[in-house]
Amino acid sequence: MTKSNPGHYFEDFKPGMELVHATPLTVSTGDISLYRALTGSRHALYSAETFAAANGFPVLPVDPLLAFHVVFGKTVPDISLNAVANLGYADGKFLKNVYPGDTLTAISDVIGVKENSNGKTGVVWVRTRGENQKGETVLSYVRWVMVNKKDPANPAPEPSIPDLPSAVAHTDLVAPDYKDWNDALAGSKWRFSDYEIGEKIDHVDGMTVEEAEHQLATRLYQNTAKVHFDAHAQKDSRFGKRLIYGGVVISIARALSFNGLESAAQMLAINAGTHAGPLFAGDTLYAWSEILDKAKLSSTTGALRIRLVATRDQPCHDFPLKGEDGKYLSDVLLDFDYWAAIPI
Amino acid sequence: MTKSNPGHYFEDFKPGMELVHATPLTVSTGDISLYRALTGSRHALYSAETFAAANGFPVLPVDPLLAFHVVFGKTVPDISLNAVANLGYADGKFLKNVYPGDTLTAISDVIGVKENSNGKTGVVWVRTRGENQKGETVLSYVRWVMVNKKDPANPAPEPSIPDLPSAVAHTDLVAPDYKDWNDALAGSKWRFSDYEIGEKIDHVDGMTVEEAEHQLATRLYQNTAKVHFDAHAQKDSRFGKRLIYGGVVISIARALSFNGLESAAQMLAINAGTHAGPLFAGDTLYAWSEILDKAKLSSTTGALRIRLVATRDQPCHDFPLKGEDGKYLSDVLLDFDYWAAIPI
Amino acid sequence: MTKSNPGHYFEDFKPGMELVHATPLTVSTGDISLYRALTGSRHALYSAETFAAANGFPVLPVDPLLAFHVVFGKTVPDISLNAVANLGYADGKFLKNVYPGDTLTAISDVIGVKENSNGKTGVVWVRTRGENQKGETVLSYVRWVMVNKKDPANPAPEPSIPDLPSAVAHTDLVAPDYKDWNDALAGSKWRFSDYEIGEKIDHVDGMTVEEAEHQLATRLYQNTAKVHFDAHAQKDSRFGKRLIYGGVVISIARALSFNGLESAAQMLAINAGTHAGPLFAGDTLYAWSEILDKAKLSSTTGALRIRLVATRDQPCHDFPLKGEDGKYLSDVLLDFDYWAAIPI
Repeated sequence: MTKSNPGHYFEDFKPGMELVHATPLTVSTGDISLYRALTGSRHALYSAETFAAANGFPVLPVDPLLAFHVVFGKTVPDISLNAVANLGYADGKFLKNVYPGDTLTAISDVIGVKENSNGKTGVVWVRTRGENQKGETVLSYVRWVMVNKKDPANPAPEPSIPDLPSAVAHTDLVAPDYKDWNDALAGSKWRFSDYEIGEKIDHVDGMTVEEAEHQLATRLYQNTAKVHFDAHAQKDSRFGKRLIYGGVVISIARALSFNGLESAAQMLAINAGTHAGPLFAGDTLYAWSEILDKAKLSSTTGALRIRLVATRDQPCHDFPLKGEDGKYLSDVLLDFDYWAAIPI
Repeated sequence: MTKSNPGHYFEDFKPGMELVHATPLTVSTGDISLYRALTGSRHALYSAETFAAANGFPVLPVDPLLAFHVVFGKTVPDISLNAVANLGYADGKFLKNVYPGDTLTAISDVIGVKENSNGKTGVVWVRTRGENQKGETVLSYVRWVMVNKKDPANPAPEPSIPDLPSAVAHTDLVAPDYKDWNDALAGSKWRFSDYEIGEKIDHVDGMTVEEAEHQLATRLYQNTAKVHFDAHAQKDSRFGKRLIYGGVVISIARALSFNGLESAAQMLAINAGTHAGPLFAGDTLYAWSEILDKAKLSSTTGALRIRLVATRDQPCHDFPLKGEDGKYLSDVLLDFDYWAAIPI
Repeated sequence: MTKSNPGHYFEDFKPGMELVHATPLTVSTGDISLYRALTGSRHALYSAETFAAANGFPVLPVDPLLAFHVVFGKTVPDISLNAVANLGYADGKFLKNVYPGDTLTAISDVIGVKENSNGKTGVVWVRTRGENQKGETVLSYVRWVMVNKKDPANPAPEPSIPDLPSAVAHTDLVAPDYKDWNDALAGSKWRFSDYEIGEKIDHVDGMTVEEAEHQLATRLYQNTAKVHFDAHAQKDSRFGKRLIYGGVVISIARALSFNGLESAAQMLAINAGTHAGPLFAGDTLYAWSEILDKAKLSSTTGALRIRLVATRDQPCHDFPLKGEDGKYLSDVLLDFDYWAAIPI
């Protein structure tokens, strides 16, 4: 019997099942440096210990998206090794700050299954949480993927579809309480009250992604999905080449969004996310944002609900998103909906 | 007189000579992060401080192969700057754990020389050790290289060939004593008793290597061999392009072997190693392993002697190695023989 | 009103103006590892805590050029986002050692402006300093850049050109006092008295630079200049491709210069610097040095004033620099003048 991991097929997932994923990871300042070098992230809160300390953090915290990718990466061998498509995210919450030296373990609960009408694939919903070394949940999110069946002849399970919120309620956000936010060091004078619902921001800059870069990032997170690494096998695939991990797109788009959203540094929740198209090495990412909602969280701190859109080889002066047919335009790669804290 | 380093030629090496190599290196958590990002390494023992602590390590240890490459890299300016070929390794032992903050110094003793019959080159054997800041030897190995003579007219030295073991005896292994090995976190239920001598494992996954990646890795180890970095000069070389450092092949193949050997995390010894062919950027590495031997080391911990084979652009379902002529097949790049600890 | 940063135009710069730049950065051992992996730096003083401790440093210090790039990077959004050319450096001084955990903030004072005769651009001089978390200035330098005017119709300001030294006086150098320099570990027996004014050294080795490498380095420093990252936009630029940040050239040339200047590890001052030509991915860098001056600083430590020249695809056996017309040869990329400490 082969000892290599065959992954799980659609039939293997049963609602109520818990999967403890392999390879917990101790996050270090080395990871913080690499994340910065790989994404171009520039938020003062995640770059400068002095800035973080002035705002109530004991030491320099880890960017929530870095923690998210680390947790997500660990789920791949168990959840999506045989996946056809990564369909969406919902109800993602960042519950505890992560600091260098914290060890993150990923655990998933299967919360829904539904076989597709073709009988060859099915959709699996999992809620994944990342726990630190104290057993505290630092982040939690739902994702759903389309997974191959091992044998189409196997009977379909009872469908069970979880009830998911379209967005995390602002009352459920774990809010920081910024004490001494320095606009000059943060890079912007724009704060909570300067952003209006419906406002759109072109982040202007572009970032071209190389094979070495996305492979480094994806291995940093210990995400092993084959499509990102094996050019030889990908020659015979639909795209004929390596596909870049969607988390790389999210992080680079988010880093580009610094230019216009400098003080919305801290991601609090992921409401939804769609990978509308694939990114390949050599492509240039651009990004724009729309303010979807606002909420005051404390006397010092508010939250912006932001749609972050990433495009390929397409500057975002005119905020490209969907065509008249309601479908994403061909150059739109990401439609990501999140809450971020911002000082008042 | 030029001040740049001309390296040593065959005539310069005398048995009994000791070479203290330049640039000791303090290994950090930054190196651990980069090693992970560059190789895809996923062993829980070298990723999670909690996992390491549960098994008797005071803090997260450094992967033995990372320590090996750091020590090896320092020897290049003195041993192999004028080398024609890296012929082999033997009797490599990992004697002390290395932790972030440890400073490694490399020192080599010349233990053998033999001029080739062509009078233009000779073989040099060195035993290299890595010492930590306390003067303790953390690892030790023999390698032999073919080196150019400065002047073919110089007389041949008395040949002196060291007596080398074909493998490190299991009784010479410095064995850990795992206290609380967690199969789920390690990523496998397979332990010592599940592996059989003669068993072969296809590690399935492939990893394509980019120029930037191997250059980053090789510089991380401060290995300066010109063939890895100078594309302009390599245009006129035999291959016409940069050659990837053999240690990059070893580490990526070893990382690929996680898939099927998850709990054989800790390398204890290097018995032998042959770089059967060159790897170039753009090639995809695959790997398979064969269990060559087994030994029980303590009540909790055993060792597997493993042959690790890496191929280029060649999945390993049928375990490619040698042809009927006894020579390595053209796509086989590495034949590496090592001991690894595994819980019982 | 758009919230993305439009940068400053020539008219925006007024002598006497102070600019506090965004995103202070806490430098870590992760940055040290990445700097080594990206440049090939091999100085024992910046690699080994034991070596540094033996020479009076409390812990492993950060390479002065890494600190310089971090400070420089932060100035880009305010100083050179609309720059046409980076014209020069002067009077750069490294005043305090930087250690992992230090947080660097960049602040610039505008010290001169002069509109060009075409009325479309002007030259701006700034003195930039990097401060640590204690408010101590760790480094300070002047640079001048040519910046576009927002509107050529705007009147020219009163010209004001700072008086700059052609070199930092050796009496202004903040000198270390090496206590126990180990030649073998440093990699060279050559010390202060072995170098002569006028001596030239070919550093022999070449380093080919990849897109992923320079992008990683430039993002590590949080330098956001668009020309380095946006291949899509660069297609329509003068060069048709991404331009490599000049600081990458300086650091790789400096790392190459280890081979022949091993013990001149610690940069004390930047006297001048000219980027004579652009570097692109795929090009191979070579370097040579000339000893311009020498000064004894203490009983144990001297300084060498060094010209460091980098070339593209051009080995430096014959020390290429300028043609008979006094202009830099087409393959010369960098002419950099600095002081480095060296043991006596």
